[in-house]
Amino acid sequence: MKSLGAMQDWPLRVMRLVDHAEREHGAREIVSAWAGGRVTRTNWREVVYDARRMAQALEARGIRPGDRIATLAMNHSGHLTAWYGAIGMGGILHTINPRLFDEQILFIANHAEDRVLIYDQAFAATVERLKSRFEAIETFVCFDSKADDPESFIAWLAPHDGNYCWVEGDELDPCALCYTSGTTGNPKGVLYSHRSTLLHAMAEVAPDSFNLSTKACVMPIVPMFHANAWGIPWAAPLTGCKLVLSADYRPEQLCDLYRDEEVTHSAGVPTVWLGMIEHIERTGANLANLKYVTIGGSAAPRAMIEWFRSRGIHVMHAWGMTETSPIGSIGGMPANWNEMTSEEQVAFSLHQGRTPFGVELRIVDEEGKVLPRDGVQSGTLQIRGPWVIRRYFKETADAAAPDGWFDTGDVAALHPDGTMQITDRSKDVIKSGGEWISSIELENGAVGCAGVSEAAAIGIAHPKWDERPLLVVVRSEGSDVTPDQIRAHLITQVARWWLPDAIEFVDELPHTATGKLSKKTLREQFAAYRFADAVQMVGR
Amino acid sequence: MKSLGAMQDWPLRVMRLVDHAEREHGAREIVSAWAGGRVTRTNWREVVYDARRMAQALEARGIRPGDRIATLAMNHSGHLTAWYGAIGMGGILHTINPRLFDEQILFIANHAEDRVLIYDQAFAATVERLKSRFEAIETFVCFDSKADDPESFIAWLAPHDGNYCWVEGDELDPCALCYTSGTTGNPKGVLYSHRSTLLHAMAEVAPDSFNLSTKACVMPIVPMFHANAWGIPWAAPLTGCKLVLSADYRPEQLCDLYRDEEVTHSAGVPTVWLGMIEHIERTGANLANLKYVTIGGSAAPRAMIEWFRSRGIHVMHAWGMTETSPIGSIGGMPANWNEMTSEEQVAFSLHQGRTPFGVELRIVDEEGKVLPRDGVQSGTLQIRGPWVIRRYFKETADAAAPDGWFDTGDVAALHPDGTMQITDRSKDVIKSGGEWISSIELENGAVGCAGVSEAAAIGIAHPKWDERPLLVVVRSEGSDVTPDQIRAHLITQVARWWLPDAIEFVDELPHTATGKLSKKTLREQFAAYRFADAVQMVGR
Repeated sequence: MKSLGAMQDWPLRVMRLVDHAEREHGAREIVSAWAGGRVTRTNWREVVYDARRMAQALEARGIRPGDRIATLAMNHSGHLTAWYGAIGMGGILHTINPRLFDEQILFIANHAEDRVLIYDQAFAATVERLKSRFEAIETFVCFDSKADDPESFIAWLAPHDGNYCWVEGDELDPCALCYTSGTTGNPKGVLYSHRSTLLHAMAEVAPDSFNLSTKACVMPIVPMFHANAWGIPWAAPLTGCKLVLSADYRPEQLCDLYRDEEVTHSAGVPTVWLGMIEHIERTGANLANLKYVTIGGSAAPRAMIEWFRSRGIHVMHAWGMTETSPIGSIGGMPANWNEMTSEEQVAFSLHQGRTPFGVELRIVDEEGKVLPRDGVQSGTLQIRGPWVIRRYFKETADAAAPDGWFDTGDVAALHPDGTMQITDRSKDVIKSGGEWISSIELENGAVGCAGVSEAAAIGIAHPKWDERPLLVVVRSEGSDVTPDQIRAHLITQVARWWLPDAIEFVDELPHTATGKLSKKTLREQFAAYRFADAVQMVGR
Repeated sequence: MKSLGAMQDWPLRVMRLVDHAEREHGAREIVSAWAGGRVTRTNWREVVYDARRMAQALEARGIRPGDRIATLAMNHSGHLTAWYGAIGMGGILHTINPRLFDEQILFIANHAEDRVLIYDQAFAATVERLKSRFEAIETFVCFDSKADDPESFIAWLAPHDGNYCWVEGDELDPCALCYTSGTTGNPKGVLYSHRSTLLHAMAEVAPDSFNLSTKACVMPIVPMFHANAWGIPWAAPLTGCKLVLSADYRPEQLCDLYRDEEVTHSAGVPTVWLGMIEHIERTGANLANLKYVTIGGSAAPRAMIEWFRSRGIHVMHAWGMTETSPIGSIGGMPANWNEMTSEEQVAFSLHQGRTPFGVELRIVDEEGKVLPRDGVQSGTLQIRGPWVIRRYFKETADAAAPDGWFDTGDVAALHPDGTMQITDRSKDVIKSGGEWISSIELENGAVGCAGVSEAAAIGIAHPKWDERPLLVVVRSEGSDVTPDQIRAHLITQVARWWLPDAIEFVDELPHTATGKLSKKTLREQFAAYRFADAVQMVGR
């Protein structure tokens, strides 16, 4: 039928994003707050010019299309330039998480066969330590060393004139690589294609997703090495919004940026917002023009959602993972939002939102049977769609089923209103008497109790019930909250048979390199734990 | 590189739109106001069920993938169902404009080789008249005849159970066909692909385009046969917005719908809005919850933009054509909107907006040289992008250049702020002394003069200047406005050398089947016209 007539060929290539920004939004500001507090300003015209020069610099070093170009950097305009410079010459951008342990960084860089590494001065010591053990990196460039450093980014670009045309190709070509932090086994690489990245960016700007317009000013407080800062550096040139990038996550620095740059949209994990809220409550700082906050990475507690709401800020609770580009669901306002009571709105926002056009979610039981979207049953969450992984980098087998369903490792319920609610990680769920207890709900319930700073629930082997919950608690400074007080609070939050059989206090809980609670380490610490007394356990 | 890893295959097929709507927004209302005032309600779940049954009905009649299924209908849920039913079984939806003359309808239906025609009762006489002359139509179905009519849509679907899976295929497969009204020569068919349609829909919902969210309630007052109602019936299921379709364009009917259905977004051509404004000014009716109005098809006059603004309604002035799906530019708010004075905002809105990500605009002179975006020079407008035509239906040569640039036949200026301003149609521009006079600006200037209801400017041959402008005016009811008064007003609006050499009054101006001013007919009417007196002409 193709000979009957046709619309135009137009490969979905990532560089079209910055071509558009350069042409239509060339003067739109990109603000960077570097480590140490220095603030610089650039715009799309300059970023694209530098990206062209970087593409020339890469070619001058013999880098070819398909080669991997790594970054070890926080958020700033240099990093943004490097993304588009690397992809512009046909390379594959590989963002490495600098918070990983040395051996993980080595594994990832060697597995990816990175040929170039561009890094922040702040990570120079890491680079120095590992330099001799990187197997394929020939070129090291520092983003923010002094211009007279021959290895500085500026010096590296200096000989080039920017007279360069992007490498064209197929829209299925890979453009970016990001490794999952991998709580079990070695990290695995997710290889994004031009097409998947572009479709994700187009979906992300929609009013029910990040709601990004030219008028918006967006500050992601999620690192560019973390699932591509949730796609914001791709979506920004599409809309021409103002972009604020901060390498510095101290709340006082961020609050200055909210005020000085008139930020309207922001995004981050709950830990970041907890720090921000604490700072604001303590100092009287404020969030100025902020209107929309996207929260993802882990569940946002009710108090956090209410705190933002009381300041007229709409919370979009989102869920996703590196394997999903990352947006799998997001809490745009539903059709009946204006008719909802405030309590109904909060209840809606506590769920992880709805699926944007493109992706599809379902939950299945242990036999793989699809469960109803009744808001009652929970099961393993699966996802499919154009920005969802099919096969990890260099693997020989698909990670997704032939019909596309990818097992997320999360446990969730799907509600009749279309929202998805994460109830646990598959490996963290506590299996008691054939039923599942959500460790996340126990933890969220516990942190709502005065005097509890942080809490983690894990399953402990039990002769009768297979597993029963142990709650491990960090008290707030100066608090002497007791197990009975916590239990009395929990009973108002969860089913009686979910109540932990024991509550233990610790000074701190273990966290992963990306700041998430490490249940794996906690389980190791409590491997020998046995309940001293089963009396507290209530029958079902 | 494909073996290195991959994201998922997910062909950009139109039926994914309604799959999404059925799953995520199944109960979202679709309201239809039928000819005669009857209002019915349905939702995506029911529309998709009926579309599946229609796909079965088509297959039962021997219709195969790639066959053309025509509609001759106004806006209502039956028409919407037919769109997705036709495409769902792999067919090509062909929307015929019922306002065309018999011979044009015949030409189009026979050229398309339509095999099925589904029509409104209101056009039954047309169908009856032409029935014997349609060369390929075997099946005639009436959308709104009584259920006991064996040719009714309901009766046609009745035997089928909806147990049907959409025909899958390549994303480059055609899905819809729409003929341009063609002021010269025979109408030409634009064949939209699944891919072009889906990308256009994804772009259209963006905040800087139609700004469509689940919460929105959208009423297109543009017919579904007119460039697919500007794509709204594709964008609606993507977002889950409420959709209001009216077969009846009487302002009183439309105002009732605005109020009763709490419409927030609407779209139409200036003629429709003129009628609406006149009705509201006369009766005191109002537009209730309306917040966003998209105006396209021809230029919106200043007074119209100001009228909407004074009611707190944001005007998005757009430009496009059947060949561009249709959105080529649209006036979302620019970055500095909030800092603009009211007058600056109006000036911005008077232009036809900016290009959304995906399409690209440029202007060229008569030799094809690209002109600067300086807001001063105007030239022939060209466009390219993934939802722009490459080749007309059944043609053997491309309509676009090898690098994608498609000549729109419009004359425009591109401004430094990224906006595009249509100054004329290539064939309407008045060429005087080697320079161009915009007929549109003369007309817009003239209708701003009290007592002028409608105006048209055409070029009349002139011995010295090649052409000079003649202004043909329809006076408002009861007005006796004079040429001198009009000229006195015009002098405040346009350059002195643009002033028409003569002004003639007529009772009415000729219009095309789609309601546009027919300059072609007007030029024929004034073919023998000569200026009686060249004294009025001022030198340059």
